[in-house]
Amino acid sequence: MTTAPSHPGTRADLWRELAQQLRVDSVRATAAAGSGHPTSAMFAAELMAVLLQKYLRYDFRRPDNPNNDHLIFSKGHASPLLYALYAAAGAISDEELFTLRRLGSRLEGHPSPALPWVDVATGSLGFGLPVGVGIALAAKTVDPRPYRVWVLLGDSEMAEGSVWEAFEHAAYWQLDNLTVVLDVNRLGQSGETMHSWDVGSYAERARSFGWRTLSIDGHDVDAIDEAYAAAIETGGRPSLIVARTRKGKGVAAVEDQPGWHGKVLRDPEGAIAELGGRRHIRIKAAPPSAGPPARTYRTSSPVLPAYELGTEKATRRAYGEALAALGSAREDVVAMDGEVSNSTFSGLFADAHSERFFEMFVAEQQMIAAAVGFDVRGLTPFASAFAAFFSRAYDFIRMAAISRASIRIVGSHAGVATGEDGPSQMALEDIAMLRAVHGSTVLYPSDANQTAKLVALAADNPGITYLRTTRADTPVIYPAEARFGIGGSRLVHASLHDQVTIATAGITVHAAIKAALRLAEDGIS
Amino acid sequence: MTTAPSHPGTRADLWRELAQQLRVDSVRATAAAGSGHPTSAMFAAELMAVLLQKYLRYDFRRPDNPNNDHLIFSKGHASPLLYALYAAAGAISDEELFTLRRLGSRLEGHPSPALPWVDVATGSLGFGLPVGVGIALAAKTVDPRPYRVWVLLGDSEMAEGSVWEAFEHAAYWQLDNLTVVLDVNRLGQSGETMHSWDVGSYAERARSFGWRTLSIDGHDVDAIDEAYAAAIETGGRPSLIVARTRKGKGVAAVEDQPGWHGKVLRDPEGAIAELGGRRHIRIKAAPPSAGPPARTYRTSSPVLPAYELGTEKATRRAYGEALAALGSAREDVVAMDGEVSNSTFSGLFADAHSERFFEMFVAEQQMIAAAVGFDVRGLTPFASAFAAFFSRAYDFIRMAAISRASIRIVGSHAGVATGEDGPSQMALEDIAMLRAVHGSTVLYPSDANQTAKLVALAADNPGITYLRTTRADTPVIYPAEARFGIGGSRLVHASLHDQVTIATAGITVHAAIKAALRLAEDGIS
Repeated sequence: MTTAPSHPGTRADLWRELAQQLRVDSVRATAAAGSGHPTSAMFAAELMAVLLQKYLRYDFRRPDNPNNDHLIFSKGHASPLLYALYAAAGAISDEELFTLRRLGSRLEGHPSPALPWVDVATGSLGFGLPVGVGIALAAKTVDPRPYRVWVLLGDSEMAEGSVWEAFEHAAYWQLDNLTVVLDVNRLGQSGETMHSWDVGSYAERARSFGWRTLSIDGHDVDAIDEAYAAAIETGGRPSLIVARTRKGKGVAAVEDQPGWHGKVLRDPEGAIAELGGRRHIRIKAAPPSAGPPARTYRTSSPVLPAYELGTEKATRRAYGEALAALGSAREDVVAMDGEVSNSTFSGLFADAHSERFFEMFVAEQQMIAAAVGFDVRGLTPFASAFAAFFSRAYDFIRMAAISRASIRIVGSHAGVATGEDGPSQMALEDIAMLRAVHGSTVLYPSDANQTAKLVALAADNPGITYLRTTRADTPVIYPAEARFGIGGSRLVHASLHDQVTIATAGITVHAAIKAALRLAEDGIS
Repeated sequence: MTTAPSHPGTRADLWRELAQQLRVDSVRATAAAGSGHPTSAMFAAELMAVLLQKYLRYDFRRPDNPNNDHLIFSKGHASPLLYALYAAAGAISDEELFTLRRLGSRLEGHPSPALPWVDVATGSLGFGLPVGVGIALAAKTVDPRPYRVWVLLGDSEMAEGSVWEAFEHAAYWQLDNLTVVLDVNRLGQSGETMHSWDVGSYAERARSFGWRTLSIDGHDVDAIDEAYAAAIETGGRPSLIVARTRKGKGVAAVEDQPGWHGKVLRDPEGAIAELGGRRHIRIKAAPPSAGPPARTYRTSSPVLPAYELGTEKATRRAYGEALAALGSAREDVVAMDGEVSNSTFSGLFADAHSERFFEMFVAEQQMIAAAVGFDVRGLTPFASAFAAFFSRAYDFIRMAAISRASIRIVGSHAGVATGEDGPSQMALEDIAMLRAVHGSTVLYPSDANQTAKLVALAADNPGITYLRTTRADTPVIYPAEARFGIGGSRLVHASLHDQVTIATAGITVHAAIKAALRLAEDGIS
């Protein structure tokens, strides 16, 4: 809220000067890097200057303060602007600003949680906003907090379906703690966007989805100030500020010119001079609003369900029963489902802990993003659906891994065992898909007791944990007291003179047991 | 247009009777199968009865007639209704109707092109409509046709982001040959949808996206008739008919009751009696509108670009140059891009054949669906973007394979070679992801000449063909006259006394060549 003492003039002057500083620092950093998106960083300089100076409530020295606002650049390629903002906030040094895009630097080409103020990695368009919805949702439900979530969204990004899942959910959950700034600079990477500068087309769409909308000139600091003030006063629904901007604003050689996306300027020194040279404004952001201290969730050892040897139980049902038990033992566990909770059996958790269960409807991308948002807020999310339909959210799972998120994905009805429902309902690609994700764990239990144990272990497993369950009832083959860890394998059957080895997992273990018995009949052990 | 002579009464009576027949046949088929979604089939019986009897222009004996309308059940789990419709049209026998969900039957749990009247497999919600957009787009551009595309969409499905990509594109391309029937029965699988029976919420959203909307009682045959008539007269934009319906309509035990999704009725005989028993109405659909005969596209052997040994050329650029050349030789080749055509170099095709290039903006799912739609219409589509971002469309690629579509996907900037842009821009999962798709081909060329040859081969390769290109310029290592096939491998370097074998692909071939030279310096061949 305070400014460097050297700075004179009105607050509007300060905002304009700060905006120029953000532009200059974006040019300086990208010129040093030799690559990056300086023009994408310039459009929103005034929008971010006013936000940082007046509205963002954030303790940059304590990024783990649970009441801090959240600022997400869904438009991740505007990272130089974000880094210039951090520099203006005193969070990173001018020296570090110059490490942009260098190997080992925290200032990656697109933002990532290598920086403590970044909640999630962005750079795949349409991912940041849905995560913002998840973070806002946590504060409205399981962990009430006064923070506000600010998301910078690009106009190109509005073509991504995932953005509309987020618009739908933000309104559905009445997230009035969410403010989205939409930069309408009309230019994508290779040409004009679908709607160019038709600001009204975006506002109409958002309004029809139940949002409050405010359309402004994105370079007019007073209009920006008024829009933010109106947004934070809006109750019961999220706000969208549709800001008409000019890409490359302030540098005549590139302003509103196509062909400059993701390219450094030809004459950075000239651009810096044109922008009025370097400035040295420091902004101390307002402290977070008063809110409860960081929560310590009550956790105890879960009393997991136990299944009798020889009985039959589907692993998907064991999942639901174990998750409900885990929820009783651990307050930090939340669950969500893609409108099939009666098939995945996450409905058993919903029955037991309705206040921690989230129906995400048929929006798998928003479901994964909400899980990431809950993880950002220190919760332990489990997200379930038919395994086949997680392929709809593959990019989000990939981005969750890059975001260093710990989430648990539970897919039911895996494999051809889904049978007569047909191939569209069968997950056949899920193991390959999940194993290819950086730092992932794929769990494929073969019986109900093993499933229950793995559910409990998954809660503490870092990264992306995928648990694959099957539809059919299958025999319980391990005693309830058996111990299981993540990784390794188990010997189901062996004899002294084995001739054949069968290695298998999940539901096919039962087919393999039958095969072994049949082979034994033929004298083959 | 004609009816079985036995049937008396007004046309409205006929529609009502036909609707009851569709319901009864849905119940009969699912009862015989012992599984399926009879309640989901009942809501839209009147909507489909009026469509079949009066509006659908389709020669069921000649599904390959290029001027036939297209009917897509985006809500694939309503398949019993679709099959009952085919039976009423005389396309399938009552006997075949009873094979529903049996192994080897063409009547799969969810529709697939095993049936010649089905364009694409559905069953993963939010996929059918975007493909319908592609089919409608083909008729408005590269292959002008009088046909209309009819899509049955479910209200649960509206939560999928991909649906909004389709709404956006249908309006953008002014597809007035597209009519979507949205069934608002308010009940999803596990509970109420987000908007229940708030028909207006859907209509408002669609209007804001530029659609004509008509809200009706989905069981009122006269209202349905009027809505279809209005829809086909609407010019310049697509139409959405928002139909309020009751799930399980006509059978008191299940009508508008939750908990009946995907379950057979307890008393099918009672339900059939309640619905008035079996009927034997046969409808001969109206013939397709007069239009041009099936096209034979001019194709000749392409004059591919040739690159000199030892020069450097990025495989992504070779892709663009080869595709432009292929487009000159083959009229059936169309290309599309996810708003990065200046990076993937599909822009070179756009420059040469602008009338066959489609900018799909940042909507990877709609892009893949449009490619499938073009394939349905006998074209040869190539779709390009950064390889990393095809993970956003993975479910669509999976569904394209189940749809038996032949499409070519070209991902640039593959692997860690993308470097300073950061992990969000690097495709690291793409090979695993694409290889796991049924019947797919993954091509990863290591130089420009090989790339050019593979582009030409990909045009005739069935199924999902994925070509992976890299950003950096790399040496041309194969002569332009070298012959390449799909599959197999090539020996780059060998000597009589080799001690080490290096197997590699794509850009790492060049690293491997350097490694081999370094090893040779150490006396290791």
